[in-house]
Amino acid sequence: MAVITQYVVVRDGVEKMTFTSKKEADAYDKMLDIADSLIPFIEQAECGLDEATIEKLAFYFATRKDDLSSLLKGNATEKAAEPVKKAAKKAEPQ
Amino acid sequence: MAVITQYVVVRDGVEKMTFTSKKEADAYDKMLDIADSLIPFIEQAECGLDEATIEKLAFYFATRKDDLSSLLKGNATEKAAEPVKKAAKKAEPQ
Repeated sequence: MAVITQYVVVRDGVEKMTFTSKKEADAYDKMLDIADSLIPFIEQAECGLDEATIEKLAFYFATRKDDLSSLLKGNATEKAAEPVKKAAKKAEPQ
Repeated sequence: MAVITQYVVVRDGVEKMTFTSKKEADAYDKMLDIADSLIPFIEQAECGLDEATIEKLAFYFATRKDDLSSLLKGNATEKAAEPVKKAAKKAEPQ
């Protein structure tokens, strides 16, 4: 029999994502932290958005944080505006 | 008589903001560029937002780009989440 190691990102007791590498699990966990921190920030824009939309936007910005950071620095290159390919295959959503 | 120098930020022929210092005018102009570049980026979130909301969000993110950049780096400090005081008095909206 073989023993494999799984790294599971858990939020409020819910298993969010399983990874085979700790590095990826940590990166995903950090990304979820960033998404959480963006929620109050987006709320302050006072655009009358509902909670689900704010969470979706926060998650989207967190997943594309490098592109967004680049745009915020004024690098409005085509590349930053391009949609990124879907998340890496290895991560299996729970 | 006195001669004063005004720096007016113009967009698509519309006078957006008048400044008494070139530096501030350039900064505001750059901020508007950043806001413009964020519009397609926010559209790609596919949250079903209307154009006016996307523009308002883009402008808001551009005006608070330092706080947002800090959050994207994972510095979810209280300071970054705090609303910033209104824009400096000197800038008179057109």
